[in-house]
Order: sequence, then structure tokens, then C-alpha cells
Amino acid sequence: MSNPVVGIIMGSQSDLKVMSKAADILETLGVPFEVTVVSAHRTPQRMVKYAEEADARGLKVIIAGAGGAAHLPGMVASLTVLPVIGVPVKSSNSIDGWDSVLSILQMPAGVPVATVALDNASNAGILAAQIIATADNQVKLQLEQYKKDLADKVLRSVDALNEKGYKSLIGE
Amino acid sequence: MSNPVVGIIMGSQSDLKVMSKAADILETLGVPFEVTVVSAHRTPQRMVKYAEEADARGLKVIIAGAGGAAHLPGMVASLTVLPVIGVPVKSSNSIDGWDSVLSILQMPAGVPVATVALDNASNAGILAAQIIATADNQVKLQLEQYKKDLADKVLRSVDALNEKGYKSLIGE
Amino acid sequence: MSNPVVGIIMGSQSDLKVMSKAADILETLGVPFEVTVVSAHRTPQRMVKYAEEADARGLKVIIAGAGGAAHLPGMVASLTVLPVIGVPVKSSNSIDGWDSVLSILQMPAGVPVATVALDNASNAGILAAQIIATADNQVKLQLEQYKKDLADKVLRSVDALNEKGYKSLIGE
Amino acid sequence: MSNPVVGIIMGSQSDLKVMSKAADILETLGVPFEVTVVSAHRTPQRMVKYAEEADARGLKVIIAGAGGAAHLPGMVASLTVLPVIGVPVKSSNSIDGWDSVLSILQMPAGVPVATVALDNASNAGILAAQIIATADNQVKLQLEQYKKDLADKVLRSVDALNEKGYKSLIGE
Amino acid sequence: MSNPVVGIIMGSQSDLKVMSKAADILETLGVPFEVTVVSAHRTPQRMVKYAEEADARGLKVIIAGAGGAAHLPGMVASLTVLPVIGVPVKSSNSIDGWDSVLSILQMPAGVPVATVALDNASNAGILAAQIIATADNQVKLQLEQYKKDLADKVLRSVDALNEKGYKSLIGE
Amino acid sequence: MSNPVVGIIMGSQSDLKVMSKAADILETLGVPFEVTVVSAHRTPQRMVKYAEEADARGLKVIIAGAGGAAHLPGMVASLTVLPVIGVPVKSSNSIDGWDSVLSILQMPAGVPVATVALDNASNAGILAAQIIATADNQVKLQLEQYKKDLADKVLRSVDALNEKGYKSLIGE
Amino acid sequence: MSNPVVGIIMGSQSDLKVMSKAADILETLGVPFEVTVVSAHRTPQRMVKYAEEADARGLKVIIAGAGGAAHLPGMVASLTVLPVIGVPVKSSNSIDGWDSVLSILQMPAGVPVATVALDNASNAGILAAQIIATADNQVKLQLEQYKKDLADKVLRSVDALNEKGYKSLIGE
Amino acid sequence: MSNPVVGIIMGSQSDLKVMSKAADILETLGVPFEVTVVSAHRTPQRMVKYAEEADARGLKVIIAGAGGAAHLPGMVASLTVLPVIGVPVKSSNSIDGWDSVLSILQMPAGVPVATVALDNASNAGILAAQIIATADNQVKLQLEQYKKDLADKVLRSVDALNEKGYKSLIGE
Repeated sequence: MSNPVVGIIMGSQSDLKVMSKAADILETLGVPFEVTVVSAHRTPQRMVKYAEEADARGLKVIIAGAGGAAHLPGMVASLTVLPVIGVPVKSSNSIDGWDSVLSILQMPAGVPVATVALDNASNAGILAAQIIATADNQVKLQLEQYKKDLADKVLRSVDALNEKGYKSLIGE
Repeated sequence: MSNPVVGIIMGSQSDLKVMSKAADILETLGVPFEVTVVSAHRTPQRMVKYAEEADARGLKVIIAGAGGAAHLPGMVASLTVLPVIGVPVKSSNSIDGWDSVLSILQMPAGVPVATVALDNASNAGILAAQIIATADNQVKLQLEQYKKDLADKVLRSVDALNEKGYKSLIGE
Repeated sequence: MSNPVVGIIMGSQSDLKVMSKAADILETLGVPFEVTVVSAHRTPQRMVKYAEEADARGLKVIIAGAGGAAHLPGMVASLTVLPVIGVPVKSSNSIDGWDSVLSILQMPAGVPVATVALDNASNAGILAAQIIATADNQVKLQLEQYKKDLADKVLRSVDALNEKGYKSLIGE
Repeated sequence: MSNPVVGIIMGSQSDLKVMSKAADILETLGVPFEVTVVSAHRTPQRMVKYAEEADARGLKVIIAGAGGAAHLPGMVASLTVLPVIGVPVKSSNSIDGWDSVLSILQMPAGVPVATVALDNASNAGILAAQIIATADNQVKLQLEQYKKDLADKVLRSVDALNEKGYKSLIGE
Repeated sequence: MSNPVVGIIMGSQSDLKVMSKAADILETLGVPFEVTVVSAHRTPQRMVKYAEEADARGLKVIIAGAGGAAHLPGMVASLTVLPVIGVPVKSSNSIDGWDSVLSILQMPAGVPVATVALDNASNAGILAAQIIATADNQVKLQLEQYKKDLADKVLRSVDALNEKGYKSLIGE
Repeated sequence: MSNPVVGIIMGSQSDLKVMSKAADILETLGVPFEVTVVSAHRTPQRMVKYAEEADARGLKVIIAGAGGAAHLPGMVASLTVLPVIGVPVKSSNSIDGWDSVLSILQMPAGVPVATVALDNASNAGILAAQIIATADNQVKLQLEQYKKDLADKVLRSVDALNEKGYKSLIGE
Repeated sequence: MSNPVVGIIMGSQSDLKVMSKAADILETLGVPFEVTVVSAHRTPQRMVKYAEEADARGLKVIIAGAGGAAHLPGMVASLTVLPVIGVPVKSSNSIDGWDSVLSILQMPAGVPVATVALDNASNAGILAAQIIATADNQVKLQLEQYKKDLADKVLRSVDALNEKGYKSLIGE
Repeated sequence: MSNPVVGIIMGSQSDLKVMSKAADILETLGVPFEVTVVSAHRTPQRMVKYAEEADARGLKVIIAGAGGAAHLPGMVASLTVLPVIGVPVKSSNSIDGWDSVLSILQMPAGVPVATVALDNASNAGILAAQIIATADNQVKLQLEQYKKDLADKVLRSVDALNEKGYKSLIGE
């Protein structure tokens, strides 16, 4: 793979199942990326190092996912001027995801985190690609094709409904 | 001003007080922008046109703010592959801002909106600049300076506390 | 079936299991309807077309269901003067349904959506029939009979409790 | 005024300031209405009588507003087959409006209430007019004109922004 | 059984599993009761009759359970001066129980409902017995014994922990 | 005054403004009461003594109000078999009243607290009177008169609306 | 075991599965502790005695866990000057844990409870050890080692990701 | 002042009004402290340095207050084994304080933060003193006196109520 331009990090290996969706979509869209674990609370020095070196290593965007009192996205954002995308993860100890969402979203003035929906790492990957695409037409073409594919999938549902009727589709 | 690369739109002129902070910070950071009103619910065709033409007009990022059942950021994101930053606005009829936050944040897979904190248009502006800066070193330098200024302001608070004592600073 | 007067639309085929309840009750009440998929975020142009043509095609009411940041009901309402009934769907990525409820309910002044309870497409169907019944006595008679049937079902529970005792009914 | 076709009721005279917006918009749209106080909790028999006689008196739609544990809309809906529109009112003792919203919205299967946004009686009036308009072209024309006026107001904001600049509009 | 002094009612037979706990504890405490289904929304006239006749029939307390937009406890309270105990039921369509809780708890001034914890019909039964016991020493003695039994059960846990150790008790 | 049968207690003198409404209504209804401050957290021994002696002193019902992590109602209920009515108070440090409501409402099985609406001490007083009235016809007559007065006040609003029109009543 | 310096108490034996994690970590860190059941609501006198004697018995810290309207931590804190750590437990009747969290966290000025995350008794144990360690270097060394172990576990995840790739780790 | 044993830090000088209450109570209780500003997001390196050096500088406890996505308490806790007390601050941009509370409370296993009530820095100061008092009898005596003073203040309210009557105290 070419040099990664998107860094996908997460607070714990247990977030990997959710966060791998970001990697999958970036692969689909042809954007080189890397995946690793960086814990704000258990490896703070590693986090500082990762964030401070990211720009010089060639990363353009960082995707950070974490659950509960999720400090990873915001702390990385405090340490770099690269855009940071935050993925709130509904971990097992979360209060229905509200803690992760608010800990990532409600950043103070001066240090934004681009927050996506709960557990929606796929959208984090797409957003990273959209950022890359602001200066990369090849990725923009991929995104336009991806948008067409989303629409086509809906239209196939429409056809299925018209042909089979709604009762058939829900197995009645 | 040069051709705008960031479009700042909002659902109603009543959102201007909040959303103007995005414009102010972009001006500070030297990123050309435009500001206008585009209502998803009252001018849906205008919204479609704005979103579909944005890329061709040279915009790189769209910042969209709205309150209540805030559909503007998500609908614009459905109509363009440009990155869209959503600002939840706590309008007068909002239920403490929860409606705006969730209507913007919880987008379905395939159509991300980069959501920032409630009423935090300033962070939307910074995030837009960070996205521009992934391919513009001049803006990146501005952002690095801005980050230093944020830190300096904290350090001045530290000095004030040390010199005057905490009781003096709160007027006791 | 006669020409449909109620259009039942949903953001995704995955909403069909919930939304089919609207169709079922309309069938029971003798109100002709149609069912299809229209995604605000993945097929925005199709949504605009559907909403703008609905009145001319003879629809009197539109029932729109969606989950998460649910923009379909509100956007359709922005594009037609037909009454739009919104069904918040608790989709798999929803934050306990709050996002769907608030995204549909909290519409700004000027563009109402008649919102029903979470996942309660059956009530959306009844409400649509009530609207049709304001000018159709046949449907009104059906609704009156339906109301009687609801009461009768309660009275049968009362009889069962009286005859068998509460312990028997819960299997003690 | 002609015979009222919309009945606007509320649980307390203290709700009148909010609920009068429904009356105002119906007057604008040329739909005859009546306004009165009917308390589910303090005048339950009056409520039963009002709901049971509404249809025979010629009403087509009932708009019911209430705050806190708001039972008026749902109870009226249980007593008539007319469509009932519920307006959650954020009364002084409400827990930020959540109690009113949930007490009105979350009706059980069989007895829908068409719920609008918190304190948004104006939208209740428009929705009532939309229901009347399904069988009254004069009202439909009024609604179409109203929609155009909403759009025009946005476009005037756009012009003002273009002419004066955003700083001027917020008084800087 | 002697003439019932506590009436246990619920909005639907599906609430019986939860509400039967009120009956069970009243049986334990020697307080005569009756159990039936009374739906505010599906049998409003039956509800009015039940509430208006309750006092004359010899009931001293009414326990009413309902889910979602739970109007039964409050409406019964509006129709009688007997104390009404409300049990919020977390029904299948409830938004995590919040709707039931707020619809029952947040009654307006003048018409109280004595609300107990979500799904805690057992506590409703105890509270009813406590009310009866304000004028019935036999029931008061039963309640005092019940309180002792609760304490004894805790003390047996204490002994078990002391004897076996905590690891043994959780099966390690 | 005769010997008090209702004890009104609160966690802090700052709750007196809210809690005095319970005293006012009991005075209106002719039910003798006492008012004092008993803090669960600052005077726990006083609380134990108050609760343990209440029954012997002739109290029939205890009304306990508290804010934030409100432990007073539940702890008193743990120490007596008298019915305890809890009033959640929205104190200055409360999180919108949610803490008070949940700390009082969500009591475990075995120890109920009859919870009324946030800050609604008036309803606590009425509920206490309803409990007293289960064995006191004089108080029951007072409650029936009070209910009539509530209805009459609504009917006077109805007359005012009919006579003056809604615009006049809101000062237009 | 040496004399316990940490007392771990809980409202019910059903909390033991959650609360045993506090004991486990204290064992790991070499801090002597005791475990027992003390119910605020079912054994209030036992609670008073436990709290009042804790200091004299040599305890330095108390960890108290409870669910629902959780009064145990706050009441113990009202009866001793020892630091009290509260563990909100998401019991079966809890409203998603919010009741436990707010009942423990929102203590009034003067009587703090050191609250940890929902169901996170492990963190309560670590916090207790940190308090002990302020005057016990042996425990401090254990805590420093524990922190290193946490970091090492993250680094092993990093190595696993690097070696096997993310797809392999999630079983693709 | 002697060498500080408690460090009081906050994310912004705007938190000083709330956080100064911690300093005030520590002064009252005779515990030496220091006060400064340390922003996790604007001065991350300063935060790392402060946390890593705290133990060696003689601090025993750190009190950290912050609002919104409050990362300061948790990040400091990740960098030291000293006990960290977190004060959620309801800053101007907070969503009613929920973001601050959850960002501080919901720490992952291994890294506790002792969280106190929203804006309740006074309790943070008392808790810090309680921790110091586990090895300092002088401070323990101060805390016992403070507890007595709290009780005395309640008893003075009791006397005032008895002497003047409740109506007099609320100014009727």
C-alpha cells in the first residue's frame, strides 16, 4: 500500500470491530490508511507522540474512536492541526452511548473534533475520503461512484417492492 | 476577497449571530468564504441547487448550521461529495439543543456530516480551515499560530493567578 | 386496488417490517394506498420528485418513516402541501429512538409533520384514514367500527380475568 | 365567521398565549375555528362531552394543547374518530418539555395523536388546514401561497445578506 | 374474600405480568383487592364509570398501571377523590420507560397521582396497604412484620458472605 | 390547631418556598399538620428519630421534600410503615430536576415512596388529605368541594373566552 | 488477612457480581478489605452502626455500591468523615442506570461521595488504593506497576495489529 | 502557607468562580493547596508536565474542574497515581451539564476519577480533605467540626421555623 494518509486509531482493541468499518470503506475508495491502538488513558505518552508526529509522517486526517468518557479524539485534536474525526463507540460500559457522544462532540472553542454518528465508523471513513478528495480528483471520482451505488441500491429496493409487493418482502 | 472556498449556510437569518463566528475565524485564518441563508424546509429547491453547484463553483467545504429538526446539513451532504460540517444551533424552540444535535449527528451510513459542538460555529470554521490546510501550507501555518495563541492565553491566566491570587481574580 | 390516496414511503427497505403495519391497517379500513422506498439521503432527487408530484397523482396523505437523523418526513413536508405523517423508526444505529423522534417532531414553524409514536406505523395508518374520513363517510364508518373492536377486545380481557382469575392468566 | 371546522382546545387558560398561534394561522388561511378551554383533569366530563359531540357539531379536526402529564389530546382522541392534533406545551412546571412531548406523542396502537413540535401551535394550525385542504381547494390555494411566502421571506434574507454583508446584519 | 378495598386496574392485559405483583403483596398483607382491565384510550366510558363508582363500591385506594403515554392513572385521579397510585409500565413500545414515568408523575396541581418506580407494582401494593393501615391496625402489624422480614433477608446475606466468602457466592 | 396528622419535612430551609404549598393546601382542607426541617445528610440521627417516632406521635402521613440526590423521602420510608409522600425539589444545583425525581421515585421493592411531580408540593398536600380522607368523611367532603372549585375555575375561563374572545385575553 | 482498611458494602447481594470487582483489584494491589451487605432501605439501623463505627474499626475508605434510588453511599457519607466512594449499579429495575448515577453523584454541598462510572467497581477499588497510597508507599508502588501493566496490554494489541493486520484480528 | 498538598486546576479561567469554592473550603479546613489553570485542550504539554510532576512536588490529591467535553480530570488521572477528583462545570456552552458530567464520570476501567456533583467544587475540597485526613488527625478533627456545624445550621432552621412559623419565614 502507498504511504497512509489516514490514521485510524482507537482506545482499545475491543473497539476494532466497530472501527474496522472505517478501514474497509477507505480500502474501497482507494485511500491508503493505517490502523493502530492508542489509548488516551492507558498510554498517554504514546498518544502525545502519535499526534505530534502524524503530520510529519504524511497523515492528512486522523480518525479516532473511543467509548465511555472518550478523550482520545479530543486530546489528539489538541496536539495537531490535522483534522480529527471522532467516532463515538457504544462500549459495554457506556450509558447507551450518550457518554461517548458528548465526550467527543462537545469540544471547547478552538479545538474541533469532526464527530460522526454513534458506532458509525463507516461514515468516518467516507468523511476522511471527502477531505482527501478536496485535493485529489481520483478519490472524488470514487466518492461520486459510491454515491451512485447508494442510490442504485435504493432503486433496486423500489423495484423489488413493485414486483413482489410489500407483504412478500417481509415474508408474510 | 479571493473566490470563496468555504460556503457558510444557515437555515434562517436568526441563526446568523451564532454562525457568524465561523466567518470571523475564517477571516482570521485567511480562508476565503461566503455567507448566505439556505432553508431546507422553506427553500428546498434553492438548497438542492446550492448543494449541487457548490463543487463546480469552487467550494471545498460547506458549513451548515440549523436548529430544531435540523435537516440542512444532512440534506446538503446527500447532494454533494464535498465535506459538510454541521453546526447544531440551540434555537428558541429547541428542546435544550438535543433535537439539533441528534438531527445533525446521527446520519445514516453513507452520508456523513462532520458535527461540532452545540452553537460552536467557531469550531466549524477552524475545522474547515484544517480541511483546507491539508493541501494549503499557508493556512496550516495560520492554524499553528492560532494554536500557539490559544496556549498563550492560558499561560497569561496562569500568570494572573500567580500574581494576584485567585480571590482577587473573582473579585473577592 | 383503486387509485391510492395514501403514499407510504420509508428511507430504507430495512424499515419495511415496521412500516408495513401502516399498510395493513389501511387495507383493513378500506383505504387505497401505495408502498415504496424513498431515501432522503441516498436518493434526494427521487424524494423531491415524489413529493412534488404526489398531489397531482391523487395522493391525499403521505406517511413517511425513517430512523436516526430522520429527514424524509420533514423534507417531503417542505415540498408539498399535503399532510405528512412521520413515523420515527428505532433503527439499529439509533440512540434508543431519541434521534428519530426529535428529527421528525421538532419541525420549524411553517412546515409541520404529524408525528406518531416510535415505531407505531399502525397509528400512522389510522391517522391517515382519519384524515381521509373527514371527507369520506365510508372510511369514517370503518373507523367507528374499528374503535368498537378495540373496546370489545378490552372487554374480552375483562371477562377472561373475571372467569379465570389473574393468577391463571399469567400462568401461575 | 362560518361554522367552525377546527376546534382549538387547551387544558388551561395559561396555555392560551401558546395556543393562540394556531388560531392566528387558521384565520390567515381562511379556515373557521373555535377556541375554548377543556381540562382533562379538572373537567373530565366536559372533555368527554366536547369530544363526543365534536363530529356532530361539524368539526373536522381538533387541536388540543396541554403541558406536563398532558392527557387532553390523547383522551379526546380516544373519544372521537376525528383527527386530533396534539401540541406539547412547555408549562412552568414541565421538566424542560419532555413530559408534555412524551405524554402526547407516545400513544398506544389504535389511538393516534398527530403531534407537532414543542410549543409550536402555529404548525398545528397549518396541519389542520392541510387536513381540511384534502377536500377544500380554496384552503389548498391558501396553503400554497403561504409556502411561497415562507420562501420569499428567506430570499429577502439572502438579498439583505448580499447587500449589507453579514457583519452589518448582526450589528457589528 | 372480603369486599375489596383496593382496586388494581391496568390499561391492557399485557400489563398483567407486571401488575400482578401488586395483587400478590396485598394478598400477603391480608388486604382484600380486585383486579381488572380498564383502558383509558380504548374504553374511556368504562374508565369514567369505574372511577366514579369506586368510592361508593367501597374501594379505598386505586392502583392503576399503564405504559407509554400512560393516561389511566391521571384520568382516574381526575374522576375520584380516592388516592390513586400510578405504576409506570415499561411496555414494549416505550422509550425506555421515560414516557410512562413522565405521563404518570407530572400531573398538574390539583390532581395528584402517587407514582412508584418503573414496573414496581409490588411497591404500589405496599403503598396501598400503608394507606389502608392508617386506619387499620391489623394491616399495620402485617406491614411491620414485612419490614422485619426484609431486614432478616439482608442479614441472611450478611451471614452467607461471612461464612462462605464473596468469591464463593458469585461462583468463582 | 389539633394534633398534627401530617408531617411536612424538608432537607433544607431553602426548600421552604416550594414545600409551604403542601401546608397551605392542608390548611385549606382542614387537615392538621406540622412543618420542620430534617436533613438526611446533615442531621441523619435527627432523621432516624423523626421517622421512628412519627407513628407514635400520631402522624398518619409524612410529606418529605428534597432536591439533588434526594435521600430524605426514601430514608424516612425505610424507618416507618407510615405512607411517605416524596416531593422532588428542583434546587439550584439540580440537573434540571432529574436527579431529585429519580432519587425519590426509583425506590427498591419493599420500600415505596409516593412520588408527586417536580416542585408540586401542593399535590403532595392533596394526596396526604386523600389518604386521611379514606377514614375521615369530613376531609373527603372538603376534597370533593375542592374538586368542584377546580372545575368551576375552568368554566370561568370558558366564559371569559366566549365573552371577550381569545385575542382580548392575551392582550392583543 | 491484615485488618481491613477498605470496607466494601452494597445494598443487596444481587450487587455482588458487580461489586466483587472492587475486592478483586484490592487483592491484586495488596490492600486489605472486607465485604458485606448493608441496605440503606431495608436495614437502616445496621447502616448507621456500620458507618459510625467504621473509623474506630480502622477503616480508611468505604466503597458503597447500590442501584436505582441509591441512598447507601450518600447516607454512609453523612455518618462518617471517612472518604466514601460510590458505585452506581445498573440493577434490573434501573432506568438505564441514570437513577443510580444521579442518586449517588448529585450530593448536596457538605457531604461528598466520590462517584465512579456505572458498574465500574474495579475503578472504585483502584481509587480506594490511591487514597491509601497517599500515606503508603508500598501501595503506591503497586499502583505504578498496575499502570505499567495497563500500558503494556495496549502495546501488545499494537503488536498484534501490526503482525496480523486488522482483518485477521476481527476474524475476517 | 505550608507546601500545598492539594492541587486545584481548571481548564479555563472562566471556571474560577466555580472552582474557587474548593479553595475556600480547604482554607477553612486548614489544608494547604495551590490553584492554577491547566487546559487539556489548549496546553496539553503543560498538563502532562503538571500531572507527571505532581507527586514529586508533594501533592497528595488533585482537584480538576472542566466543562463541556471535559478531558482534564481523566487525562491527569491517566498520568499520575495520585487520586484525582473531578468537578463537572456547567459552562456556558454545556448541554445542561450532561456533557461535563459524563465526560468526567464514565472513565474506563483502570483509570478512576472521583467525580462530585455538577458545579460542586466545595464538595471536591471536602473530599480532598477527607483523603488527607486518612493520615492526618488534625484535618480529621476539622472535618468532624465541620460536620457538626452543618448539623447546627439545620437545627437553627428548625428553631426559626418553630418560633416564627413557616409563613413568616417565606415572607407571607
